[in-house]
Amino acid sequence: MTPQTGTDDGAVSRRRLFGLAGAGAALAGAGVAAGIGIDRLGGENTAQAAVTTVDFHGAHQAGIVTPTQQNLHFAALNVTTKDRAKLVKLLRTWTEAARRMTAGQEVVANGAIGGGAEAPPGDTGEALDLPASSLTLTVGFGPSLFDDRFGLAAKRPEQLIDLPLFPKDKLDPARGGGDLCVQACANDPQVAVHAVRNLVRLGFGVTEVRWSQLGFGRSSSTSRTQTTPRNLFGFKDGTNNIKAEDTDVLREQVWADAADGQPWMAGGTYLVARRIRMHIETWDRERLTGQEEIIGRKKGDGAALGQAAEFDPVDLHVGGKDGKPLIPEDSHIRLASHETLNGARILRRGYNFVDGSDGVGHLEAGLFFLAFNRDSRRQFVPMQQALSTKDAMMEYIQHTGSAHFAIPPGVSEKGYWGEGLFG
Amino acid sequence: MTPQTGTDDGAVSRRRLFGLAGAGAALAGAGVAAGIGIDRLGGENTAQAAVTTVDFHGAHQAGIVTPTQQNLHFAALNVTTKDRAKLVKLLRTWTEAARRMTAGQEVVANGAIGGGAEAPPGDTGEALDLPASSLTLTVGFGPSLFDDRFGLAAKRPEQLIDLPLFPKDKLDPARGGGDLCVQACANDPQVAVHAVRNLVRLGFGVTEVRWSQLGFGRSSSTSRTQTTPRNLFGFKDGTNNIKAEDTDVLREQVWADAADGQPWMAGGTYLVARRIRMHIETWDRERLTGQEEIIGRKKGDGAALGQAAEFDPVDLHVGGKDGKPLIPEDSHIRLASHETLNGARILRRGYNFVDGSDGVGHLEAGLFFLAFNRDSRRQFVPMQQALSTKDAMMEYIQHTGSAHFAIPPGVSEKGYWGEGLFG
Repeated sequence: MTPQTGTDDGAVSRRRLFGLAGAGAALAGAGVAAGIGIDRLGGENTAQAAVTTVDFHGAHQAGIVTPTQQNLHFAALNVTTKDRAKLVKLLRTWTEAARRMTAGQEVVANGAIGGGAEAPPGDTGEALDLPASSLTLTVGFGPSLFDDRFGLAAKRPEQLIDLPLFPKDKLDPARGGGDLCVQACANDPQVAVHAVRNLVRLGFGVTEVRWSQLGFGRSSSTSRTQTTPRNLFGFKDGTNNIKAEDTDVLREQVWADAADGQPWMAGGTYLVARRIRMHIETWDRERLTGQEEIIGRKKGDGAALGQAAEFDPVDLHVGGKDGKPLIPEDSHIRLASHETLNGARILRRGYNFVDGSDGVGHLEAGLFFLAFNRDSRRQFVPMQQALSTKDAMMEYIQHTGSAHFAIPPGVSEKGYWGEGLFG
Repeated sequence: MTPQTGTDDGAVSRRRLFGLAGAGAALAGAGVAAGIGIDRLGGENTAQAAVTTVDFHGAHQAGIVTPTQQNLHFAALNVTTKDRAKLVKLLRTWTEAARRMTAGQEVVANGAIGGGAEAPPGDTGEALDLPASSLTLTVGFGPSLFDDRFGLAAKRPEQLIDLPLFPKDKLDPARGGGDLCVQACANDPQVAVHAVRNLVRLGFGVTEVRWSQLGFGRSSSTSRTQTTPRNLFGFKDGTNNIKAEDTDVLREQVWADAADGQPWMAGGTYLVARRIRMHIETWDRERLTGQEEIIGRKKGDGAALGQAAEFDPVDLHVGGKDGKPLIPEDSHIRLASHETLNGARILRRGYNFVDGSDGVGHLEAGLFFLAFNRDSRRQFVPMQQALSTKDAMMEYIQHTGSAHFAIPPGVSEKGYWGEGLFG
């Protein structure tokens, strides 16, 4: 996978199918160069289109170490059929649709299902005029998929546990779980929404939406080419995140290999999704130094307490005048540090959200936490156990949704999502 | 008001207050050139910052004819005090905050309320590294503000009616009404959210959030400099919208004048907000020609039926082979046309939304309709009456929220929002 990032501001029109007589038929056989978006009408292949396209194929799925895009649409789905063949067919259909949409094309080749103007359009149309906008689509399988419906029980990875209930969790069942998930990231929310909507549509009769979450303002960066964004507490988030460039750390902490127990997961990873409501009104009444002690970093430049600049290595042992550590015992970055977690790290890829208001006078705002790790039992779970029991930040947040998914490895040019599991 | 639009893709850092010792004090007196964002640290005044700033001041509020930005955060608020002086003080505070934020600065001059690190930060911080992103803030007053609490009954414009219940409305009280509204539009959702959040924060003890809505993908353009965006039915929306360049039409159809009855509203307008849930799954099963007959336009290029190109004038009288009009009697653009509405037009400025899922397997998606007109009694109401009773589209949509606001005129460099009403 070669992430190719760039600006998405130009209104590069690469989708213009409907109403253009014959265009669908003429272009149905057009090829797609790997990583490059092709204008289906006339083969214009602009530099701008190219730099906004992320290759769908590779050893790992895109959307994990891809430099974080600005917008997210995440959907968890229930499988409503017990027919394994239908599910496999859908995964093949989804894969083909994802190849097309991530290249900036309509979801199907000829724009209409079953033939022309008297059929429902094959693509819902709202992204027709928009470039690929670095769209990535990432699919995962939840623990419930491995029940007795599809004969997959023996292939359930031991890492794909039912996540425990952590102290202070207040989970809404309507915001958790799922047989499948689709993570759509793009630099245009309309492109991400279009992609999820069209996959959901293709799943009619096989899947239905269980829950769905929009996010913005990527709350972690995943590449050293990006500046560190801020969460809704106003702090830089992800300074010490695992980055795409850290290939050794990725191999150790993120990518599953065959020796982990399930060969079909080699090159895959495990995704933990947590909807974290932030009580921003309460947070906003905390004094600046109090906020900084809770996080363990300065609010302005993101430097760890006791350090001068954002990327200076964190030193948990620096003491203040009173002999106490400058980074307090109950601060977030201490408790989440691999130093205090036997080396365990995770790759975060969360987004900020505001879902309207809460009915009692506040904004319903927070962080939709997405993290990838090789074994949630040894990485996410002990980290969250420490945070939920000791983190001073817990006074200001509440986990309201939770889900866990096995993210299979990447797809080859002729393969499909989950081929190793079902094939 | 001089809208100055441009690209927002660069990570121009213009907000960097926290943690930079003394910067707040040193810059507290920095001036703001009209329409130009100023970097508060060192006075860098980049071209990029300039082109992403929309002037806050003018005869009319910004955010009405300003070329539609990509993202919306809209909030309706209840006033929780009965103290008129507190409300006026808040409007003054909000105005000053809006001057700063629309110029790309923090919400308050010195970054901390009441003095330094031991006070809560004056700005919540999540937009510190982001450019102004063409942020506009537009404030309105709902019918309920003119009750007996603040002595404003005699100043209630007769145009500011309580909107009637239209056929097929299914209004959720938790998504309608409000004493005040704030419309934040920007090309970065984090900037829009930051602005609303900080105004809400400043209102603590005086106002509280009643309801709130995020939107994306501007579903109407308001300037001939913009391409026409698409709504979640996949159609271009706003081809025949009133545009910023149509100054005569704006004078006639949008801007109130003193002769309209309330001199304080001269230069203002009236905003109708309607949350329109779209049943996209049902729509997606309609055939292409059926969709086009419901809308009255081609899906691909947006040309009206019977015309060749998007901006060809609509001709409602063109007949097909069977003698029936090509644009059907129950099509949306016919019923909403000023030809069939005695010349009445509105300026639309809506946004697409997806608010998670609906709990029964679908995305909770639709259009957050925002429209400005001079007299909702003669413009929006008859239009909506015609649509709600005859529009073939009603099978696919449901109005779930409704609100009406008087939008006062623009603010002078020393004025404040609502000065004419309260002054």
